[in-house]
Amino acid sequence: MMKVRHEILKTAFAERIYSAVKELPILDYHCHLSPSEIYNDKPFDNIGELWLSGDHYKWRLMRSAGIDEKFITGNASWREKFCAFIGCVGNAFGNPLRDWARLELEKYFDCKAYLCGENAEAIWQAANAAIAKNKLSPRRLIELSRVEYIATTDDPSDTLIYHQKLIDDKGFKATVAPTFRVDNLFNIERTGFPEYLSRLADASGIKIDRFSDFLQAIDTRMADFKAVGCGFSDIGIERFPQTAASFEAAEKTFEKVKNGVSVSASELDGYSGFIYVRWLNSCASLGFAAQLHLNVLRNVNQREFARFGADGGYDTVGNSFSAEALKRILNLTAQNGGLPRIIIYTLNPSDYYPLITLAAAFSGVSVGIAWWFNDHKNGILTYLKRMSELSHIGEVIGMLTDSRSFLSYARHDYFRMILAAFLSDFGEENAPELIGIAKRLSYYNTKKLIGGKL
Amino acid sequence: MMKVRHEILKTAFAERIYSAVKELPILDYHCHLSPSEIYNDKPFDNIGELWLSGDHYKWRLMRSAGIDEKFITGNASWREKFCAFIGCVGNAFGNPLRDWARLELEKYFDCKAYLCGENAEAIWQAANAAIAKNKLSPRRLIELSRVEYIATTDDPSDTLIYHQKLIDDKGFKATVAPTFRVDNLFNIERTGFPEYLSRLADASGIKIDRFSDFLQAIDTRMADFKAVGCGFSDIGIERFPQTAASFEAAEKTFEKVKNGVSVSASELDGYSGFIYVRWLNSCASLGFAAQLHLNVLRNVNQREFARFGADGGYDTVGNSFSAEALKRILNLTAQNGGLPRIIIYTLNPSDYYPLITLAAAFSGVSVGIAWWFNDHKNGILTYLKRMSELSHIGEVIGMLTDSRSFLSYARHDYFRMILAAFLSDFGEENAPELIGIAKRLSYYNTKKLIGGKL
Amino acid sequence: MMKVRHEILKTAFAERIYSAVKELPILDYHCHLSPSEIYNDKPFDNIGELWLSGDHYKWRLMRSAGIDEKFITGNASWREKFCAFIGCVGNAFGNPLRDWARLELEKYFDCKAYLCGENAEAIWQAANAAIAKNKLSPRRLIELSRVEYIATTDDPSDTLIYHQKLIDDKGFKATVAPTFRVDNLFNIERTGFPEYLSRLADASGIKIDRFSDFLQAIDTRMADFKAVGCGFSDIGIERFPQTAASFEAAEKTFEKVKNGVSVSASELDGYSGFIYVRWLNSCASLGFAAQLHLNVLRNVNQREFARFGADGGYDTVGNSFSAEALKRILNLTAQNGGLPRIIIYTLNPSDYYPLITLAAAFSGVSVGIAWWFNDHKNGILTYLKRMSELSHIGEVIGMLTDSRSFLSYARHDYFRMILAAFLSDFGEENAPELIGIAKRLSYYNTKKLIGGKL
Repeated sequence: MMKVRHEILKTAFAERIYSAVKELPILDYHCHLSPSEIYNDKPFDNIGELWLSGDHYKWRLMRSAGIDEKFITGNASWREKFCAFIGCVGNAFGNPLRDWARLELEKYFDCKAYLCGENAEAIWQAANAAIAKNKLSPRRLIELSRVEYIATTDDPSDTLIYHQKLIDDKGFKATVAPTFRVDNLFNIERTGFPEYLSRLADASGIKIDRFSDFLQAIDTRMADFKAVGCGFSDIGIERFPQTAASFEAAEKTFEKVKNGVSVSASELDGYSGFIYVRWLNSCASLGFAAQLHLNVLRNVNQREFARFGADGGYDTVGNSFSAEALKRILNLTAQNGGLPRIIIYTLNPSDYYPLITLAAAFSGVSVGIAWWFNDHKNGILTYLKRMSELSHIGEVIGMLTDSRSFLSYARHDYFRMILAAFLSDFGEENAPELIGIAKRLSYYNTKKLIGGKL
Repeated sequence: MMKVRHEILKTAFAERIYSAVKELPILDYHCHLSPSEIYNDKPFDNIGELWLSGDHYKWRLMRSAGIDEKFITGNASWREKFCAFIGCVGNAFGNPLRDWARLELEKYFDCKAYLCGENAEAIWQAANAAIAKNKLSPRRLIELSRVEYIATTDDPSDTLIYHQKLIDDKGFKATVAPTFRVDNLFNIERTGFPEYLSRLADASGIKIDRFSDFLQAIDTRMADFKAVGCGFSDIGIERFPQTAASFEAAEKTFEKVKNGVSVSASELDGYSGFIYVRWLNSCASLGFAAQLHLNVLRNVNQREFARFGADGGYDTVGNSFSAEALKRILNLTAQNGGLPRIIIYTLNPSDYYPLITLAAAFSGVSVGIAWWFNDHKNGILTYLKRMSELSHIGEVIGMLTDSRSFLSYARHDYFRMILAAFLSDFGEENAPELIGIAKRLSYYNTKKLIGGKL
Repeated sequence: MMKVRHEILKTAFAERIYSAVKELPILDYHCHLSPSEIYNDKPFDNIGELWLSGDHYKWRLMRSAGIDEKFITGNASWREKFCAFIGCVGNAFGNPLRDWARLELEKYFDCKAYLCGENAEAIWQAANAAIAKNKLSPRRLIELSRVEYIATTDDPSDTLIYHQKLIDDKGFKATVAPTFRVDNLFNIERTGFPEYLSRLADASGIKIDRFSDFLQAIDTRMADFKAVGCGFSDIGIERFPQTAASFEAAEKTFEKVKNGVSVSASELDGYSGFIYVRWLNSCASLGFAAQLHLNVLRNVNQREFARFGADGGYDTVGNSFSAEALKRILNLTAQNGGLPRIIIYTLNPSDYYPLITLAAAFSGVSVGIAWWFNDHKNGILTYLKRMSELSHIGEVIGMLTDSRSFLSYARHDYFRMILAAFLSDFGEENAPELIGIAKRLSYYNTKKLIGGKL
């Protein structure tokens, strides 16, 4: 089968740029890997479970192809699910899953069979044989992929015990650090918030009676996270606040919610804005880089959400981003306690123009790499074009996986190929400069961002 | 003159894919052809009237080129209008009308003259000679174009008599079915709504005094439509409802309007939402596929609307689509009586990311082909790219004309060429899969959608 | 170094089209050059000051590259600033500043050194030598660039004395006319509006006590502008009015503001709408073409605005354009006193579909060339594609600089190259038509727009 690499790198110069960066280590500064799975390092069983047990990208594609849910999240066997997936991904031309699947099969499973339903069984056998032969496990894949740094995503109420164990395990070389993920501090109107407060109280050791206790618990946990190497915080809630309430007004909203009194949309918005600004100010004090994931709608299919819960493949792209609201919150943050390093991601590429130009008006704020629904070839090229046109291409922070899978490091290879193809169009006479930029975007700019935390 | 085909199909592989689909029949599942014109089958008189009597696409281009309205919708002769149009379309590079005109001249009029003002008179002569020689008429064009299925667009108050006559006419092979177009059920605040209710009462045989009568009249007409083969319903109103009122609230709004009492924008929105959900539920019960045409502004130039009425070329692209509102209505529909098969079209390609991902979260909901202002080469390519990246390219439902002209079947050829060019980029080693997909998108996916109605 | 021209014009046919337009004169119908600088014609001192003293495009790029503000707007020497800029622009691949810098160095400074930090000093020397040798000054650059027409941007309270002097100076051949820039007539809630009213009163000779005086002062100034050859008016305020108040309501809002009484957002919006419609009607009476610059956010970084004031590089792309609001204002304008020739620009290319189709629904209204953050290669190509697809490419009004620099005429060359590349893709068999369109978009369409004012 034609390699993905040859499909993307169409000239000798593009190949030359890629060759200069393909062996560089990987710094995966945002993902959803489990620190306990990394620590426990249980070998994988079969490629079906490995590929399909938690990957809502793949589930979505299978649903788009009309495959019965039995073979997606239902009770079919892993082998059946795998074969159903291969039959569907093989001719999903243009979908990144087809490229990723081919890259992963080649990189980790030494399998170059043509990707199609007829070969599903053969691929299943070959891949499982490779898992056994190469003793593939989380740590083995991390090593094979030359990963130097992993930032997991952790709730303020989460234990940091596995992060500590990974620090203490001197035999494992990659740095694994938590990310302080703040969504649950905002979603106070949801059922389950009282239970969440209990968990946060337990984790922080602070009894949360009043709003000030809540804020102190947050501060305590941020310090705890920093103590195990955390350098990033992030947010991925649906709505971006239009404005920020005063401490007193936010406190009032919090108390109302806590006492079961209903609050208005505007009160919730003001509360969100207050927490947003305070959170960003805390990031600035602690030296955390804040990652804002904008323009997502969560759990849009209520029936499936009721059946399945979150992360079932029912999050989608929002279209309510307001440049004016972002301007307001950034100014309030600057005026209160200062801006941290901020990286803003958008699911909706229609917002690149307002976002990239707005970010550039604030020192230390920039727009992050093509994210989630955008991390296909055109999506990454679109991002690189917009950044080069509206900003300085050499300053772009490179790829992350945002993944739940240990195999997704292939996405870094994918990004580097697309980057090489993109840069090669500027002409071979600029080879030294272009190769320099390729290296920065593949490794060095991220290394600088992570800084002392690495 | 260079053929459109050679401009689009630049490689032998693209030609090969196109050859595999160009002879497939046409299923035109959404258009604005008149069932009585098809039934009566009056031969055409001249290409001027045929091209310019009702085609607001052409009028728009002529206005953009600064041509006097006399030669557009005024009292110039058909010959004068035709010559004015040729002078304007000949160098409208990039505009689909230039490609369509060349395709139609070649396909139906055996005319390959270079398209420019100097040749207008020669083209006029040649085309009119071809009309006479080939006895071009509605049915003749339908047969020449190998059209198997036509879904016209019909108001709930419209007669279905010509659809019945076409069913009874065993000599005519194409299936012609109505589409239940619901716009007028929503626009209750407009002048003329009382008269509309009378027409609906007449058509349904139900006296409409109360809201429940209105709903019953709708149900009756949906059954009538189904009885003559209807399998589609569609909507193209300006505003998408933000929420849905209860039956009681919708009833109250309806009664107010009926009694000449003014209603608020929010009451109208709630009414719209109620009707929207109920309509979609009815589609689900009857097995109709619902086509949602979003993001249109109607009759934006009030002076021209007063002069000309609707469909004068003064509808434009809206930009107020809200992913959250669509999410709300889809969930309400699912919770009430279930979702029908839904195809959502957007005039604004900036909304593809939110729309395609949102549709994919609901089984049976998908985003339809590049529509109206989007059905040019770049517009169709953009649609195909977004669908392949965010969904499964093999599941895309193919082309429709959305046209008032019997010549517009050339747009299906145009689509198949662009599709072949798009698919050919994925590499000749995938030829069997790519040709399979080309066939599905040209014919078989639509055939499956139409199902038993064909 | 490879020439920009060879990077853009990749075929002999593209070169042929460009050759047919490259020597045509320049009509720069919107810029921010200073009429007094043109009149006084002071020779330039050094390329550092020339390039970096007022060009917020360059400042933005330098900030994006993390360069210390000392070397941007701080107290470093011009030589230091210039070297810092060269080090940053040299590898800003994809950013138009890199192309413009190379074009300007070649065109005006006879410098073809490879653009990179190492050559900064050599470029500094060569460019300054060229300034001295060629006696580069405002008028010299205007002549060298074959500029026939310049529309500066002038406030209603500005003196027109330099415009009059330039008219009287028979030795200077280019026509320099003012543009009536109305932003300050809208921003009545800002501090400083009372002082602004005084300046307007002085300029118009009308004592402004009441709203009607204010309107009369505006009318007087519009007549004054017309008397010195003004043919354009323009606006670039942040918000577009949602609706228009009556004269009485607008008067009330104006009086409140004048008397220090606070007004609501809705009162301000209504006031803006009233002035907007009245202004457009006045343009229609006087034969001014109105240029609407939409979708900009001004001075988004409040700390930098406090430090620096306006035009510091802190304006960004807005995303709140409403097609419905524009439709409303255009209809109100048509109904009141008629529409002038209107050219609408958007900073946000996501709005091209709604904007281009809406404009086309009103005679004399069209969408203007890729503006500001859009005037790079992809941005211009995107504009040309959308206009060709949704309108008639032959009717497009061509390039303007929107610049504060006398060197920016190179952007007209840049546009003509990109235009030639764009048109060449339609095929050499259409050469005469394509070259005709290239000429219209490079010169003749603008000449027709300027009309008698030239």
